[in-house]
Amino acid sequence: MGLAIGVDIGGTKVAAGVVDDSGTILDRERRDTPGNDVRANEDVIVDVVETLAARHDVTAAGIGAAGWIGNDHATVLFSPHLAWRNEPLRASLTGRISVPLIIENDANAAAWAEYRFGAARDEAVVVCVTLGTGIGGGLVAGGEVYRGAFGIGCEYGHMTMVPGGYLCPCGNRGCWEMYASGRALARDARELAAQSPVAAQYMVDLAGSAAAITGPIVTEAAAAGDEAARSICTDMGRWLGRGLANLAAVIDPSVFVIGGGVSAAGELLLGPARDEFAHQLTGRGFRPEARVAGAALGPDAGLVGAADLARLLT
Amino acid sequence: MGLAIGVDIGGTKVAAGVVDDSGTILDRERRDTPGNDVRANEDVIVDVVETLAARHDVTAAGIGAAGWIGNDHATVLFSPHLAWRNEPLRASLTGRISVPLIIENDANAAAWAEYRFGAARDEAVVVCVTLGTGIGGGLVAGGEVYRGAFGIGCEYGHMTMVPGGYLCPCGNRGCWEMYASGRALARDARELAAQSPVAAQYMVDLAGSAAAITGPIVTEAAAAGDEAARSICTDMGRWLGRGLANLAAVIDPSVFVIGGGVSAAGELLLGPARDEFAHQLTGRGFRPEARVAGAALGPDAGLVGAADLARLLT
Repeated sequence: MGLAIGVDIGGTKVAAGVVDDSGTILDRERRDTPGNDVRANEDVIVDVVETLAARHDVTAAGIGAAGWIGNDHATVLFSPHLAWRNEPLRASLTGRISVPLIIENDANAAAWAEYRFGAARDEAVVVCVTLGTGIGGGLVAGGEVYRGAFGIGCEYGHMTMVPGGYLCPCGNRGCWEMYASGRALARDARELAAQSPVAAQYMVDLAGSAAAITGPIVTEAAAAGDEAARSICTDMGRWLGRGLANLAAVIDPSVFVIGGGVSAAGELLLGPARDEFAHQLTGRGFRPEARVAGAALGPDAGLVGAADLARLLT
Repeated sequence: MGLAIGVDIGGTKVAAGVVDDSGTILDRERRDTPGNDVRANEDVIVDVVETLAARHDVTAAGIGAAGWIGNDHATVLFSPHLAWRNEPLRASLTGRISVPLIIENDANAAAWAEYRFGAARDEAVVVCVTLGTGIGGGLVAGGEVYRGAFGIGCEYGHMTMVPGGYLCPCGNRGCWEMYASGRALARDARELAAQSPVAAQYMVDLAGSAAAITGPIVTEAAAAGDEAARSICTDMGRWLGRGLANLAAVIDPSVFVIGGGVSAAGELLLGPARDEFAHQLTGRGFRPEARVAGAALGPDAGLVGAADLARLLT
């Protein structure tokens, strides 16, 4: 098998790389995401793919993007960060890119990469939860990415966990990603700072102001030993575990892989998540239990998975 | 393809039938379920299968039972009604039954039957929700029953819908089946009768006493036009719709099939369920939406599905 290009289109950065069939990234390109301009985004994709294709003998390219990708691997039905709405992205790029191309949801691509090269190799059923600003979800079962009937499956972050809870950008209240994400960490820390500047002092100092506290500030403070930040991480870890228990009831995976930027908090999140998962799992004691593992591939998972899927599917 | 025997082991009745490859039941046997006695249950299975096998030229038999069936189609990991715990049921029956045998979860079997012969023919992804005392769940995707890594998938009824809600027999609080099931209908009606005997008069009269109200009493009263019963059905229908929206976020089916005894309430439940599903579906307006259909096969679905799976898998 040859080399393939993977492209991960994030909200702020476009990361691209040449990936071999062991999942190793041999070469990279990086650009800023050009905001909401559909044509400018296409130009960036063409630029990074053709730049890398000129330097390596590649067989295919895979584009990973947040949003709903049709099961044709060609159409972006909806993208939260970009202006794509029922965009025939592959067709728009035809003639501009010199290798066969597929489009894939970024969290699906990350799940595939962890299954092929990371924390979930050879597992029967892999549920991958990518904790960023929100939650990205992926599922690999029987050696295939599960996409659902319309390509919109695995939107785990939008399970309702709390009737009447926090309002989610999706329009519903109480979605899981309002309780287990970087957004949740930042919100809780800012709330704490508003109630008790003293209790949140360490995080406020780290961020410069209460309003400037972000998810990464909370995980950094927690890693440094700040008790308030650790408590917020514990709380989020428990919500994480509750959602995993719901997913175990529905999907019955052999392993959960927890990735994304927020997972940098490591055991400060995964410890409470495992405890709460074990406490909430339906049928506990009468069933085999899924392992809860940290992701192995870090921020490259989406890029590596998109490249590997492109190599296999084109 | 030849004939196969399907056996549906319920909490009170064992129903068996000879099923042809169009899903038609050609012959039937019926016994009482002999309670918690493992050997007596095996004897009943042998009895119905061999009785039917003596009258027809059959190629296989499928046993459908509530509970967790290992992916070997041979072991009952756990059964809520019966005393099976890690029971090697197929091995126990070897030599006593004259045809190849598989064991399958009853709700998986029902989902398969609806996919093959009922309300979900040729659908890409079918989520089947069987409303009885609790909720049975099944999933057919890509022409196969989805079972999960350990055979315990699709326990939809044990998604937590209400943190700290009603205590479920599974040990958790707030499980979906505490809000959308025959048990929920009966509980709500009895609560109403305790608060206002006048409001619940029709149901109390129908049942003989407030304590004797069951789920079927509520649906019967609702069908007869009783406003209190209709209101309880509407409430349950909304909980049904909320759970379907969660399942759509995770699984993205092309169709939901709602079956089981409680689904006899028909549009009194399905109407509110569809409304609430449409209201709660994440990404509504930007995605194709799954159809919510009533089951077509009624109480025979489990039997027909078990027979058909046995014919195809043995």
